[in-house]
Amino acid sequence: MSLLVTGTIGIDTVETPDAGRREELLGGSAVYFCAASSFYTQPRLVAVVGDDFPEPFMDTLKSFESVDLTGLEVREGSKTFRWGGKYMDDMDRRETLFTELGVLEEAPPSVPESFKDSKVLFLANSHPMVQLGMLEQCSDLDLSVVDTMDLWIDIAKPELTNLLGKVDGLVLNFDEAEQYTGHRNPVTAGKHLLELGPRFVVIKKGEHGCILVHRDGICAMPAYPTEHVVDPTGAGDSFAGGMMGRLAARGGHDLGSFESIRDALAHGTIIASFNVESFSLERMQSISRKDVNDRYDQFASMMRFGE
Amino acid sequence: MSLLVTGTIGIDTVETPDAGRREELLGGSAVYFCAASSFYTQPRLVAVVGDDFPEPFMDTLKSFESVDLTGLEVREGSKTFRWGGKYMDDMDRRETLFTELGVLEEAPPSVPESFKDSKVLFLANSHPMVQLGMLEQCSDLDLSVVDTMDLWIDIAKPELTNLLGKVDGLVLNFDEAEQYTGHRNPVTAGKHLLELGPRFVVIKKGEHGCILVHRDGICAMPAYPTEHVVDPTGAGDSFAGGMMGRLAARGGHDLGSFESIRDALAHGTIIASFNVESFSLERMQSISRKDVNDRYDQFASMMRFGE
Repeated sequence: MSLLVTGTIGIDTVETPDAGRREELLGGSAVYFCAASSFYTQPRLVAVVGDDFPEPFMDTLKSFESVDLTGLEVREGSKTFRWGGKYMDDMDRRETLFTELGVLEEAPPSVPESFKDSKVLFLANSHPMVQLGMLEQCSDLDLSVVDTMDLWIDIAKPELTNLLGKVDGLVLNFDEAEQYTGHRNPVTAGKHLLELGPRFVVIKKGEHGCILVHRDGICAMPAYPTEHVVDPTGAGDSFAGGMMGRLAARGGHDLGSFESIRDALAHGTIIASFNVESFSLERMQSISRKDVNDRYDQFASMMRFGE
Repeated sequence: MSLLVTGTIGIDTVETPDAGRREELLGGSAVYFCAASSFYTQPRLVAVVGDDFPEPFMDTLKSFESVDLTGLEVREGSKTFRWGGKYMDDMDRRETLFTELGVLEEAPPSVPESFKDSKVLFLANSHPMVQLGMLEQCSDLDLSVVDTMDLWIDIAKPELTNLLGKVDGLVLNFDEAEQYTGHRNPVTAGKHLLELGPRFVVIKKGEHGCILVHRDGICAMPAYPTEHVVDPTGAGDSFAGGMMGRLAARGGHDLGSFESIRDALAHGTIIASFNVESFSLERMQSISRKDVNDRYDQFASMMRFGE
């Protein structure tokens, strides 16, 4: 099934406690998402960069051959989004060093005509009004899932609430779920969010895994236990990419069922566990589908007890 | 297989953000452990209280019929251990309000002759020298597992390190693993601890589940996702009780194998998830083995994907 994603493309600076500082990295929510989902399907990207977007980054995007770049707009006279972040010693917390919105402050990109028949849509983090605009350009959807962040809960909660009434699923962080609902317990927070419209909510807990709160059931899943955490940037987006890519590839008559989402979360978990093992897309560029399958099988057998 | 546990019996005061304050509660590591493991086997308790130990608490202990109280010493002229704690809003952190060691400052209880043939030993949290003394009284062990706490890592690390060279397994909290090893990554911390002797280390992460680092493999397990967290006191001890009770009940030629411990952790997870649903032993008193089995089955099927 066709998978459309819209989100950011950025040029990142990242400081980590162990692996040091790296500048001029290819990043952004849609980039991590596309690389991750490309292990499963042919994602369609809708995003915009400025005319300063480096040629080598374009080559990197093209190196993920299954990604359809038809909807990638290079806007003349505009600047690509830039973000800098610094991870604390525990790697779970980070502070933003700088944000240069650039082209993200201008009109959003359009969904190409050839993408408007997409069946699965992921709205990576951006302003809820921008997300709504994208959603409304796709009229043939079987499944729509939205990500968000603390900033929009702060400054655009009514718009976000409105959007939640129109999508099938929501993906957000533990702290954001508490921020939105006032409930720290993730099951309680998830149930509260379901009342606003979505059929399921995925609450991400970073190294502690995730909780799925679905109208038809609840599931907790640990992160894949790894020692090799170099740079957590993009973990959430590659998690979503693996999850949505698996859903689109698997297809079926009820993409958003409890069993379907639970299965997809395990795939997201595995892709995210690779992504954090290096900066930018470096790890995802170095692995094969077989590497993904092998780690997935290991994870699934790790979880299989009581037989 | 016979399971021996030694640890504390206390009279607790607990303050929680939602369910208020409760005084004069039956508590202590050995008490929670025995109640939990009694769902699986007939635990043998070695512990000491003062002559102030309330009769109703003795009745409660006796109500867990399979617990063998032969090793429970009531010491004349001594005071029972008392502890008070207050949970913060997030329920994950607590502060100690008071500690009255009482009888814990005196000579430890002895292991009765009839218990010295025990095959499985759990040394609940106490001074590593006291734990070592207990260990040395049991000469026919198939499996020994020790718990500890931040205090002993602070003030008795050499004694604890010595003890770790003599046991099969270690159970401790995430923060304690970091405190001991200097590594925050639980897999790295666990591997470091394995070098000191144990065959496996279980790192407890409270509501985020646990990580098993075993010489023969690594496993992450989420906590059972529940909304009904009333009082987390005893969660770690009931987790250990469910785990060790299951191991002792299951028996077999290699109790400490990776598969055996992994299976047991799921049982610990389920018992702990019941325990936190009320104060003291109240929830464990109200459930049957069938309740435990039903939730276990639900948890196991929740974790079964990729088939």
